[in-house]
Amino acid sequence: MVCHMEMQQLLQVLGPWSAGRGALYRQLATSMQAAIQRGDIAPLTRLPAERVLAQALAVSRTTVLGAYRLLEQEGWVDRLQGSGTWVRSLPLGKTYVPPIGLAAPNIPWHLPSTQQQILIDLSVGTPGPLAEIAASDFALTASDIEWVMAQRSYSPQGWLPLCQEIASYLSRCGLPTSAHQILVTTGAQQAIALIAQLYVQRGEVVALENPTYFGAIDIFRGYGAQLAPLSVGDRGIQLPELRELCKTTIPRLLYLTPTFQNPTGTLMPTHARQEIARLVAETRMPLLEDMTFVDVRFGEEDVPPPIASFCRQGPVLAVGSLDKMFWSGLRIGWIRAAETIIERLLQLKERADLGTGLVSQAIALRVMQRIEQIRAARQRDVKERLAAMEQLLAAYLPSWQWRRPAGGYFGWLRLPAGNAQELAQLALRHGVLICPGSMFSVDGTHQSYVRLPFLVDTEIMQEGIARLASAWQAYELSLS
Amino acid sequence: MVCHMEMQQLLQVLGPWSAGRGALYRQLATSMQAAIQRGDIAPLTRLPAERVLAQALAVSRTTVLGAYRLLEQEGWVDRLQGSGTWVRSLPLGKTYVPPIGLAAPNIPWHLPSTQQQILIDLSVGTPGPLAEIAASDFALTASDIEWVMAQRSYSPQGWLPLCQEIASYLSRCGLPTSAHQILVTTGAQQAIALIAQLYVQRGEVVALENPTYFGAIDIFRGYGAQLAPLSVGDRGIQLPELRELCKTTIPRLLYLTPTFQNPTGTLMPTHARQEIARLVAETRMPLLEDMTFVDVRFGEEDVPPPIASFCRQGPVLAVGSLDKMFWSGLRIGWIRAAETIIERLLQLKERADLGTGLVSQAIALRVMQRIEQIRAARQRDVKERLAAMEQLLAAYLPSWQWRRPAGGYFGWLRLPAGNAQELAQLALRHGVLICPGSMFSVDGTHQSYVRLPFLVDTEIMQEGIARLASAWQAYELSLS
Repeated sequence: MVCHMEMQQLLQVLGPWSAGRGALYRQLATSMQAAIQRGDIAPLTRLPAERVLAQALAVSRTTVLGAYRLLEQEGWVDRLQGSGTWVRSLPLGKTYVPPIGLAAPNIPWHLPSTQQQILIDLSVGTPGPLAEIAASDFALTASDIEWVMAQRSYSPQGWLPLCQEIASYLSRCGLPTSAHQILVTTGAQQAIALIAQLYVQRGEVVALENPTYFGAIDIFRGYGAQLAPLSVGDRGIQLPELRELCKTTIPRLLYLTPTFQNPTGTLMPTHARQEIARLVAETRMPLLEDMTFVDVRFGEEDVPPPIASFCRQGPVLAVGSLDKMFWSGLRIGWIRAAETIIERLLQLKERADLGTGLVSQAIALRVMQRIEQIRAARQRDVKERLAAMEQLLAAYLPSWQWRRPAGGYFGWLRLPAGNAQELAQLALRHGVLICPGSMFSVDGTHQSYVRLPFLVDTEIMQEGIARLASAWQAYELSLS
Repeated sequence: MVCHMEMQQLLQVLGPWSAGRGALYRQLATSMQAAIQRGDIAPLTRLPAERVLAQALAVSRTTVLGAYRLLEQEGWVDRLQGSGTWVRSLPLGKTYVPPIGLAAPNIPWHLPSTQQQILIDLSVGTPGPLAEIAASDFALTASDIEWVMAQRSYSPQGWLPLCQEIASYLSRCGLPTSAHQILVTTGAQQAIALIAQLYVQRGEVVALENPTYFGAIDIFRGYGAQLAPLSVGDRGIQLPELRELCKTTIPRLLYLTPTFQNPTGTLMPTHARQEIARLVAETRMPLLEDMTFVDVRFGEEDVPPPIASFCRQGPVLAVGSLDKMFWSGLRIGWIRAAETIIERLLQLKERADLGTGLVSQAIALRVMQRIEQIRAARQRDVKERLAAMEQLLAAYLPSWQWRRPAGGYFGWLRLPAGNAQELAQLALRHGVLICPGSMFSVDGTHQSYVRLPFLVDTEIMQEGIARLASAWQAYELSLS
């Protein structure tokens, strides 16, 4: 039997399969063949029944049948009367590539360049250059480069002036920090990955918001964690749920984004932060506090200080990134924790890559020195883009429900009916890539949600939402 | 009982403990206390007997006794009559930091800044700027930065123009390669780490040269591999040994540096490369071929093409780095493999850090476009430094034996007597940090070797070797 998660994994493996040219059944067969060759669909897997796959892909049964027949002709699958469609063993001599575990393999971090021209990408949100702050302000001069290059030894913990600047920034945020408490990483992604590597062994429990950032779900699953979902309300997680969980199992790690949570955009109030800090101090359960979006605020609400500031002695590891504020190609993030923890993470960082590039760190230092100015400009920029998206949604998709977030880069929208995964499949054929809510879900829920980033340039956003609206129209018709 | 490996691990944990100020017994106690606090020496560990530790550290028994007594007074250890010295359990409420496995924890990638002023570092060899090629040639202009920043999506596989340039470079080296076969990494270190993560599960066998690069030993041990050492002769590994091993166990991974092996500097001839390629094709045993030093040649011998070029269909993963040729702060390396393997490694790269910084990649592109020119300049530079080291060694340490290497950055020197680990301890107190041969050893052998990098600036090298010679004089006296 094919269970829900397997179907979802198959969909992720197939990726944006229908965004190319040619008959749908051929595109589907091509994409399945590539997945079999990559090993993403293992030999001897039983593929879903035609009817089931047709519904999940929002195509006709004939399309799936055509694809299965083509795969059979080309020797990739066997079709057995009464027993379904099975992936054949790999031909002898074929290079074996090990699979990489339970994680969702095809998060759309990158699109093949042929598809970049056809598709509008409303999946991943990365910030563009700011008009007020020219990129050229950050170009390194010849003497900068000479100075940086004179650094002869590795600096895996991070370039000291940058560590000092990050520590001073955190101290200004209400979290007194010394440079020795900072590890510079290649983006917040590496920060989360190193912490997971340090704390999480196969089978151990990681508690986390549901929904949450899919990159973190992927990391924790990759380390074989058992995920304990905590539901997210208007003001963050429900504390009684977490307390109840701790009564039976103290999680090996608690992953939370209290400020402008991804994807919901919620902001956790001060008293809840204080309660979580108390629980962490009591149970010694390590808390990974994701501060990636703290500076992307545009509501009027005050942002409370991080949970870490209420828990000076407890095992809290805060992570953040300059990439969300400045530019995603910079790849500079950080971890802030007790010195003993940083020393251990430093060993993992050395083993992973001996340190992040010094040129990026030199640019990051300049960015940090002007962070208040950049933040103000970014907040103005994001506020305008949010307003533009609100207008577009009101015009094109008035039946979708959502709350204006207080910060962050995303709208979290609820469909009035249907399944966003099926809509996402149809949207591909209308030329737009979106992330359905199930990608952010720990347990297969949130199927009626879509996350939309509002950083996209306005003309592209307009065209993307127009395409999404026509996909929605077609999908709504198919539902009735 | 304290076995040999445990003593070596203790020495690595202690690091350059005696390079500070104050009485030796106090310095030793301080360093042990820090290691206990970090968790590098676990609670309830039995510390070595005073006599044994004294010999390993090249100090008197009184020094060790003084340190143990001080640790006891301060509550870090218990000393039990007739049963030795035991590390106490951590005080309650102390933050627990998980250990990170079997690996050697204190490779001297970075020295505390207080010690940088006192110690001359002859351990890790990183290239300095080249007189012929100004660092300023590589400064990015304002318009470069603007252009790079216009890239809005992540490019975890690497920036396409850089992948193309690396592919073209490898094709010129006799290894036809397309851009889709390249993954850009944060240095060769990350390249090796990602490959180990993909292939090596706990308890599986990794075969590798003995001695070899300590960073790779650390990575494989970190993944729990069982290491199968292959001895290195004048022309690389002994093929019969590898064939014998494959008869009983086909290793999960074979790690080799056929060109200018680190630390021995040996060059494997063409026929041996061809035989290994045949063995890889036959057994389907994945080969990780480290090409880090291929361009650092200064002998007259021709460099044969990589093993990968003799094994077009087999599972060979070649890795390399621009850092050894250009500058270690750039942190740009690469993996070259079959497309199906690269696709899988790409998923791990996304999970690890979503991609290496684009600014470093833009500089790397410029470097690659001028690689032949840079290589020629670097080879001239290294040749001069090698000659300088030869003169210094002949003058200061005439009894040490070594063969002039054909390439690479290191001399692999044999002491006429004694143990290089003990010498390294004495050298610390003479103000110079060296890597004893045992750090490169898979099985605790090579105790009479020292690796010396000859990239160090000449005046520093002169002072460093003078200090090393006075340490050697003292050590030689203690032996007789």
